[in-house]
Amino acid sequence: MTPGAATVALSPGKLLNLVRLADRDGRFRMLAVDQRDSLRAALARATGRSPGQVSYEELARVKTLLTEILAPHATAVLVDPVYGFPHAVPLVPRDVGLLTALEETGYEPAGEGGRERRARLVEGWSVDQVKRSGANAAKLLLHYNPEASAATRAHQQGLAQAVGEACARADLPFLLEVVTYPLGAPAADTPEFARDRPRYTAAAAEEFSQERYRVDVLKLEFPADLRYCPPFHHGVFDGRERPAVYTLTEVRAACRAVSEAARPPWVLLSGGVGIDEFLVGLELAVEAGASGFLCGRAIWQPALARYPDLTAMEAWLRTAGTRNLLRAGAAAVGARPWFEVVGGPGARLQVREAGEGWHRKYGGTP
Amino acid sequence: MTPGAATVALSPGKLLNLVRLADRDGRFRMLAVDQRDSLRAALARATGRSPGQVSYEELARVKTLLTEILAPHATAVLVDPVYGFPHAVPLVPRDVGLLTALEETGYEPAGEGGRERRARLVEGWSVDQVKRSGANAAKLLLHYNPEASAATRAHQQGLAQAVGEACARADLPFLLEVVTYPLGAPAADTPEFARDRPRYTAAAAEEFSQERYRVDVLKLEFPADLRYCPPFHHGVFDGRERPAVYTLTEVRAACRAVSEAARPPWVLLSGGVGIDEFLVGLELAVEAGASGFLCGRAIWQPALARYPDLTAMEAWLRTAGTRNLLRAGAAAVGARPWFEVVGGPGARLQVREAGEGWHRKYGGTP
Repeated sequence: MTPGAATVALSPGKLLNLVRLADRDGRFRMLAVDQRDSLRAALARATGRSPGQVSYEELARVKTLLTEILAPHATAVLVDPVYGFPHAVPLVPRDVGLLTALEETGYEPAGEGGRERRARLVEGWSVDQVKRSGANAAKLLLHYNPEASAATRAHQQGLAQAVGEACARADLPFLLEVVTYPLGAPAADTPEFARDRPRYTAAAAEEFSQERYRVDVLKLEFPADLRYCPPFHHGVFDGRERPAVYTLTEVRAACRAVSEAARPPWVLLSGGVGIDEFLVGLELAVEAGASGFLCGRAIWQPALARYPDLTAMEAWLRTAGTRNLLRAGAAAVGARPWFEVVGGPGARLQVREAGEGWHRKYGGTP
Repeated sequence: MTPGAATVALSPGKLLNLVRLADRDGRFRMLAVDQRDSLRAALARATGRSPGQVSYEELARVKTLLTEILAPHATAVLVDPVYGFPHAVPLVPRDVGLLTALEETGYEPAGEGGRERRARLVEGWSVDQVKRSGANAAKLLLHYNPEASAATRAHQQGLAQAVGEACARADLPFLLEVVTYPLGAPAADTPEFARDRPRYTAAAAEEFSQERYRVDVLKLEFPADLRYCPPFHHGVFDGRERPAVYTLTEVRAACRAVSEAARPPWVLLSGGVGIDEFLVGLELAVEAGASGFLCGRAIWQPALARYPDLTAMEAWLRTAGTRNLLRAGAAAVGARPWFEVVGGPGARLQVREAGEGWHRKYGGTP
């Protein structure tokens, strides 16, 4: 304990479960396997079918394979409640945390011309069920554009707040993922959207850091598109040349702006980029103050091209896939421990109101 | 997976949390720090005071010391909700499970001449609060004598059943501890009670293995008093000679009888015996089919004689106390994995109703 360091008081359910999501040093090295539509599309592509032809069992089996092989190398695994959770439970090692998604896959188009995006929860699923099931955290994904209509912003904000309150009642950590999107063009791979990203991501971090959302961990995008930043704009990641939109110095500043806007610890998502691009972004995010990563496709996407050959998929996951996860872990070694974000350097964590009569106060029967 | 082995279906909250209480091989090496009256008495003795003069802070501080030093060497730690839990939460490593006691310390005298014992829950505390707080299991201690009055037996049985049902609703493992006691004499160290122990312990195991109690792990006494068994009756453990009441062959049979009567996995408690006696009992219990131990005083009791010298206590706990815990772990290496008790050798665990629509069934909104 650092002399003069702060003492930070948390509720026990938040504290115990946050500890189980990160490593001993407070760094998150988490694996996402909660993809649904994107995974279904990839399996359809690999087998020359339409997404609708991919069955429940196929999705469940592939998620099981990803979880079984990669989970032991992560500090926690994020699954969806439909295809993932019931099959992941017997596979997750005792020292690996489990997070469960709340939102329905994709989004609902809304607003003028259907250009805005609204989230809704999986039907028949709730924060209380996540808590009851033994998972260590609930995760909600929101698409967010600070320039969307007031009605759409209010919808997304209201959903986040309702989930945050339900998590507080259940004494369960709340991980909120915010993904920005362009209002103008349907595609995200444009210089215009690349230019908007730093501002959008910082705005999202600022909005959802407000106390009323009761977020424990923010899961955010890299706040710039590295494919539009020298030297990477020369097609370094995907062979395609793009215009330069910002310098690396400006991208570093964007990372710092997000870290400053984020009050809770934040982790980086991969959002479908490849492992090389993800690792560059992760090093920059960690340098700016991120507390680690929660990443899926950058780790395991290439395995899907081998589908339906499960043996080939497994061989790839046990070698290249595992290596990807370990490389991400290495890039996160300097990440900011989550308890230092919450309490400052050397912070000592304790349970709120620990002391005589604690159990009666927590029990709600004074 | 063994060919032809069973598939065992559990609810996810039970499964995930049981996995966190045992080691990877399914063996429980658990530490108990939930003592209250007995700990208070020991601290009073060490300082020449009456138990009432020992403060909340003293009990909390000693429990904190025991937990901080010993928990990293256990697979899980059992704490009480009053003095232990709020202080233990920040100390328990991420890969160590946490169990919380429900019952008030001691017991209420009942029946003819107050010779019977009834339990009650800590006021303002409940299974739902244990679940909410992030603990991995709820523990209830019952005193039980199969020859007690019908009213007292019904009281204890009713409490166990109510807790079992609450744990099932919360999808939280239920660990039930049953301690037998003599109706005739106030002291337990008699040839008569030694003779009754095998029968009482087996009756307790049989009673509380019934489905209606929904017990996930039974915590039981050694089903005999080794101080009345050759060659130990010659004062091997405490220097006091006692009559021989049964042979080692009979004691082994008593252990097998308990293992056969216990439907759920069972773990051995130490009940205040010293480490040498505990280790002999643990080896015999493990040989008969126990799944490990949940043990307190046999591990750490000698530290209390050093109170209030916390430095001396810490030095003892880091050496002799830690060694006691590791020796118990070594004695439990051949313990029966809990999932084999539940499902048979090579059993494969899965979540009940895992498959399409699982989340709606579990969510209770079909």
